[in-house]
Amino acid sequence: MDRHPIELQIEKADLAINREDFETLIDIYSDDAVLVIKPGMNATGKTQIRKAFEAIAAHFNHKLDVKQAGMKILESEDTALVLAKTIVSAPDVPPIHRNATYVFKKNPSGHWLCVIDNSYGHDLFLHADD
Amino acid sequence: MDRHPIELQIEKADLAINREDFETLIDIYSDDAVLVIKPGMNATGKTQIRKAFEAIAAHFNHKLDVKQAGMKILESEDTALVLAKTIVSAPDVPPIHRNATYVFKKNPSGHWLCVIDNSYGHDLFLHADD
Repeated sequence: MDRHPIELQIEKADLAINREDFETLIDIYSDDAVLVIKPGMNATGKTQIRKAFEAIAAHFNHKLDVKQAGMKILESEDTALVLAKTIVSAPDVPPIHRNATYVFKKNPSGHWLCVIDNSYGHDLFLHADD
Repeated sequence: MDRHPIELQIEKADLAINREDFETLIDIYSDDAVLVIKPGMNATGKTQIRKAFEAIAAHFNHKLDVKQAGMKILESEDTALVLAKTIVSAPDVPPIHRNATYVFKKNPSGHWLCVIDNSYGHDLFLHADD
């Protein structure tokens, strides 16, 4: 079966994160995309998102490895919800398993872009202040 | 703090489900909305969604009670991701707690409509066939 274009976009994003290819990475986000950096802290727009990923790469000592162990896509016209089993790894720390939630939107030229990137899923509820 | 209009829409939907007021209920969905009836089985569009809710009401012997115990909303322009703590109750069965995921979209007249309704969240992975 052909893979869903969103699956290919996420694979491209993971590879770009792991290679620290931030130019390729931010191309996958819409202009006003929202990225959850950690529960209670969001980045909005390509400039903030790029800075967040640069900081995340440094935090993991430039050895971050992100991959998806499974993915479900629900699509309604130009909008899609992705439920993913995301694994975040780095040397010397146990792998982190996340129930990630992403929203993608198809732009007028037919490309799916990430508009909301919440790799924490319902772990947002662990942050009590908002 | 003023409540988010999406929170009010979800409250209206829950009340409509519990009262079996399907006219009000389907008004909250976009024309091509997708509802996960159960993992692996979706309804698409207002007609199918209405039929699904009629069947769900009958399944729970017309005593279904749906409510949200908590909600986080992530918004990017006209699209929003909702992470909710949903409780589904009926007499004589233990309440079901779900980590629900909803996607809403603001229509041109400024109303937020549900485009993807997946009350099962990552429990979609419990269904192996798709």
